[in-house]
Amino acid sequence: MKFVIIGGDAAGMSAASRAKRNAPDMEVTVLEQSRDVSYSACNMPYNIADPDREMEDLVVRHAHVFREKQGIDLRTGHRVDRIDPAAKTVTGRDPEEREFTLPYDRLLIATGASAVIPPIPGTDLPGVMALKSLEQGRRIKAFMAARNVRRAVIIGMGYIALEMCEALRKRDVAVKMVKPRPVFLPWMNPDLAAVVRETVEKNGVEMHAGHEIKAIEAAGDALRVVCTDLTLEGEMVLAAVGVRPNSGIAKEAGLDLGPSDAVAVDRTLRTSDDDIYAAGDCADAFHVVTGKRVWIPLALRANRGGWAVADNVTGKRVELQGIAGSAVFKVFDLEVARTGLSVAEAEKAGFDPVEVRVTTRSRAHSYPGNTKLYVQMVGDRSSGRLLGSQIVGREGAVHRIKAPAVALHQGMTVEAFSQCDLAYAPPFSPAWDPLLTAAIQLLKKM
Amino acid sequence: MKFVIIGGDAAGMSAASRAKRNAPDMEVTVLEQSRDVSYSACNMPYNIADPDREMEDLVVRHAHVFREKQGIDLRTGHRVDRIDPAAKTVTGRDPEEREFTLPYDRLLIATGASAVIPPIPGTDLPGVMALKSLEQGRRIKAFMAARNVRRAVIIGMGYIALEMCEALRKRDVAVKMVKPRPVFLPWMNPDLAAVVRETVEKNGVEMHAGHEIKAIEAAGDALRVVCTDLTLEGEMVLAAVGVRPNSGIAKEAGLDLGPSDAVAVDRTLRTSDDDIYAAGDCADAFHVVTGKRVWIPLALRANRGGWAVADNVTGKRVELQGIAGSAVFKVFDLEVARTGLSVAEAEKAGFDPVEVRVTTRSRAHSYPGNTKLYVQMVGDRSSGRLLGSQIVGREGAVHRIKAPAVALHQGMTVEAFSQCDLAYAPPFSPAWDPLLTAAIQLLKKM
Repeated sequence: MKFVIIGGDAAGMSAASRAKRNAPDMEVTVLEQSRDVSYSACNMPYNIADPDREMEDLVVRHAHVFREKQGIDLRTGHRVDRIDPAAKTVTGRDPEEREFTLPYDRLLIATGASAVIPPIPGTDLPGVMALKSLEQGRRIKAFMAARNVRRAVIIGMGYIALEMCEALRKRDVAVKMVKPRPVFLPWMNPDLAAVVRETVEKNGVEMHAGHEIKAIEAAGDALRVVCTDLTLEGEMVLAAVGVRPNSGIAKEAGLDLGPSDAVAVDRTLRTSDDDIYAAGDCADAFHVVTGKRVWIPLALRANRGGWAVADNVTGKRVELQGIAGSAVFKVFDLEVARTGLSVAEAEKAGFDPVEVRVTTRSRAHSYPGNTKLYVQMVGDRSSGRLLGSQIVGREGAVHRIKAPAVALHQGMTVEAFSQCDLAYAPPFSPAWDPLLTAAIQLLKKM
Repeated sequence: MKFVIIGGDAAGMSAASRAKRNAPDMEVTVLEQSRDVSYSACNMPYNIADPDREMEDLVVRHAHVFREKQGIDLRTGHRVDRIDPAAKTVTGRDPEEREFTLPYDRLLIATGASAVIPPIPGTDLPGVMALKSLEQGRRIKAFMAARNVRRAVIIGMGYIALEMCEALRKRDVAVKMVKPRPVFLPWMNPDLAAVVRETVEKNGVEMHAGHEIKAIEAAGDALRVVCTDLTLEGEMVLAAVGVRPNSGIAKEAGLDLGPSDAVAVDRTLRTSDDDIYAAGDCADAFHVVTGKRVWIPLALRANRGGWAVADNVTGKRVELQGIAGSAVFKVFDLEVARTGLSVAEAEKAGFDPVEVRVTTRSRAHSYPGNTKLYVQMVGDRSSGRLLGSQIVGREGAVHRIKAPAVALHQGMTVEAFSQCDLAYAPPFSPAWDPLLTAAIQLLKKM
């Protein structure tokens, strides 16, 4: 059987490796348009933070290992332009721009996502950067090495923007952030978002939310980000306004698309064509809380999706439950974590959400080194179900979010969650864990 | 209604406070034999570690607050010797050793637990200490202040022993630990236990497991712990060999006892007498994995039990699910965490346990500051259920254990747990969380 995979990053290479492990005789071909396969994109901001580290450190497994040790027919520099589901072929161009056509029995679309470039003049100027692919990471690093970047402007304030903001501050670059929408981290409880914002600002970052961006202009050796009522200058401009799925060839092939135009897949990762799967940042997923399709492109799902496709292609039927919308990041000394639905998302999904926000200590009352921990929790008034949680703090936020994440997978009620035996020792929490305090407060409001 | 509570620590004072909040007109009387109420016993090792801190810092709420602000009739120095369930009275002695008898409508036994003193000669010598009550904590601190304690011998190697070992090392006291059983942390996977042991030894602690202790003897200004084939010397000897429930008066009153002679209670915390409840370290609980009674005296359950009793006594029926056997502690720079059953406990409970142990990194591959994280997981071959997990590491062990703890409360299968959306960012874990890696490995073995 011929298993062809378009895209050689997390989902694609996970699927290829596992397919070969499950079925060593299967012909597995991976077509990757860039020269990079299997790298840790999430690590790029931390690598950029350190001028002494090589971008190539982020390669998890090199192409020759996939080829020689694992017997995968991995073709880099191969771009796929067209899928013909009727003929069961893919057509594209090789590194010499010669057309190739390849037949498949099963196809995996793992084309990932691309950074959105804001539709304004000047984004093609040198020094205007985006960060999604390893090549883009290299470009940022090379630009910073070649030019004396002392000031940067970041367009966007999402988690990539915030991680990059920290990376640039580590290199002593002055950072200004700007975005059109007035609300910082709109999915987050406003009190928690204020804590994050305060930390970012304390680290010397200027934040300008609510400014429409008109253009990027050259200004001598620097660049100018021109807003209606504000102009920000820097040697480098980073556009971090989000990503979009690379679903063009899937759409052209007549496959169904889901939310945000991601490729729609069922729980076995199969698209609307029986022989075509999709996984990773280009594909959608079911949300375990709403049961509805969502597009939340993150690394764990990409890896997991790749494995599930390989299992299904090699005859071992696997269904994925879906995602809980768990996402975590670090910004300066702060941990930020979420799982499940925000209040607005819960309302949109037809729930009757009730929200609490508690401020607790990160350690027992008399244990030294206490910091504040902020916990938000959302429940559904009519069913009693836990719908989501957000945690911000200097310690214990990220790993703690895993507990409500598990609860969401089980459709647990707030009442049942409040009874969980979450353990206690003075260095790690008050006797009542902050999650339990939040759940108990939430119960009272429900 | 007269609500009488025997014991004024976590369970007792939680119950008293909440009963008054639920029903301000209720007559709530607390009889506490010592002069201490409502203190954080778990914090004592950390307090002892710092000679500049007062033991009184550990008092969470002072007696006069309970009396004056909350209207609780709190009587310290009042020892209860006898419960008469037929007459519905308790009888005891006040601080002047005068007998008193008090009628009750509802009674709560919250008498806690006491440190076990090993049955060997010499435990009455000055300098032989135990640590359970605040008074015992004061005694240790006063002894260390008065005497030049440079060497200590700890009998026992459980978590109190280990926490005290760290506290004493912080004060530059040389520590030798000894216990009769040859296996260190017998409930723990041997590989994980070896990691803990190595850390303790690296911190200059001598560990002697498998030595029967014959006697403690005076040796000039010091004490000598005499074993069959070993003699250890120190100015102080700490007996940390476990605790036992203070269930004597409950037994005398004819109440049913459960495992380890703890007072047997149902899910509403009621004893075998309809008007008598028990909560805290003197009472048992149902284990959510086995459904059977266990005695695992820990602070969270004590607080939770106190609240549940107050709710039930004031007419709001509350049932507790039970405990998952979650326990965490810190020893030097190591976090140690467990939830659910060990392999031996699972076998004893009639499961068909399968165990895995994985060693992973605490952060993403290329993120700086990586340390090792050791995860053990146990599943039941016949039902597929998750039965327990243990984690040891320099970061991310304690808060991570909350995820499998929630899963145990829900009777989740290993397969379902392996699908959970536990979130990922490079500073906090590999893309596949160590818990997921363990679950996936465990699934393969099952």
